[in-house]
Amino acid sequence: MKIAVLGTGTVGPTIAAALSALGHDVVIGTRDPQATLARTEPGATGGAPFSEWHAAHGGIGVGTFADAGAGADVVVNATNGAGSLAALTAAGAENLAGKVLMDIANPLDFSRGFPPSLNPVNTDSLGEQIQRAFPEARVVKTLNTMTASVMVDPASVAGGDHSVFISGNDAAAKETVAGLLKDFGHRDIIDLGDITTARGAEMILPIWLRVWGALGTGAFNFKVAR
Amino acid sequence: MKIAVLGTGTVGPTIAAALSALGHDVVIGTRDPQATLARTEPGATGGAPFSEWHAAHGGIGVGTFADAGAGADVVVNATNGAGSLAALTAAGAENLAGKVLMDIANPLDFSRGFPPSLNPVNTDSLGEQIQRAFPEARVVKTLNTMTASVMVDPASVAGGDHSVFISGNDAAAKETVAGLLKDFGHRDIIDLGDITTARGAEMILPIWLRVWGALGTGAFNFKVAR
Repeated sequence: MKIAVLGTGTVGPTIAAALSALGHDVVIGTRDPQATLARTEPGATGGAPFSEWHAAHGGIGVGTFADAGAGADVVVNATNGAGSLAALTAAGAENLAGKVLMDIANPLDFSRGFPPSLNPVNTDSLGEQIQRAFPEARVVKTLNTMTASVMVDPASVAGGDHSVFISGNDAAAKETVAGLLKDFGHRDIIDLGDITTARGAEMILPIWLRVWGALGTGAFNFKVAR
Repeated sequence: MKIAVLGTGTVGPTIAAALSALGHDVVIGTRDPQATLARTEPGATGGAPFSEWHAAHGGIGVGTFADAGAGADVVVNATNGAGSLAALTAAGAENLAGKVLMDIANPLDFSRGFPPSLNPVNTDSLGEQIQRAFPEARVVKTLNTMTASVMVDPASVAGGDHSVFISGNDAAAKETVAGLLKDFGHRDIIDLGDITTARGAEMILPIWLRVWGALGTGAFNFKVAR
């Protein structure tokens, strides 16, 4: 499939590389492609600078949010949650209409320091905000409950014996996303229901951050034991 | 130990019976013991009426919140989250001072219908509210992330291969609570940190409720796979 991955932090390039390795035609969307490609400073979490990463992943295109979105069958929102609506607006409602919009972002609010709180939260979610803002997109919330490396390589933790959640209003879109998750190696995909269930998935973040602190590693994931 | 369990819904009697079976001296605290003992209607979630349950558990005392608290070494808050502060106020700050206060309640807010939202949430938690209201109590948040039967019989789900969290400011109080959890059969006890980490534990509830809906059973628990 043709897949646009919006976001050039840690998550976007990780997802883009994994989708490309699976044989998909991947373009990364960013606000200013020239500026992104010129970056020489380390990535957000200490990874390689984007320019270096891109040189090692020449098969992956880089374009504006709108260019990436226009050509895609599936759009992945891997932007910072606080900037997701702006990024998707830049991608253009017409480029999202009818498409599977896989939302893997978290609405982390660092305005009070660390650990972040969530905004929105409790009676709304980023997934719902996106669905309301782009009613013709087929939004599926998923993967936001684990670190980037586990998203694309679930077997790296406990042999892959853990769970991933999906939330969305469109059954066929959820099937498309579940297919991609299975291709990554996810075995326990739990359909929580419609997009309002994204509240629950996003509200895992506060305990995720505390477990990360307690274990000293992000190499874990939640499993629904039953 | 002498343990007061505050609350006569599903959770309180379940915890009280399990602690009594472990050999502890257990008293259930309630607003009006005579009214509670006179109940003949089914329990909150369709269980036996309290009077019937109590007849089958004669070793367990029933008293006012204050009477139960006064004689206890450990106090368990198993009241409805919306009524927890009132119940603990009725128990009396002087009866909570210096004691381990095991808070297993959730601040569910049904004012918007089902599923409930949380109140407080995100930048505060019920665990923190209780610690602030009763600064001399040694509050430990735990067990709120699973259904009552799993709290006291973790082996009933996936052979007990799942996780329980503890949050609190007092290391010795957390050790006491961890000892009780181990006696119930919990094997993976994750210390999240101080009482502010109760936010994370409480914010699991929204996804817990959705997983319950998706699976059609509360007989599950979260495991931190790593």
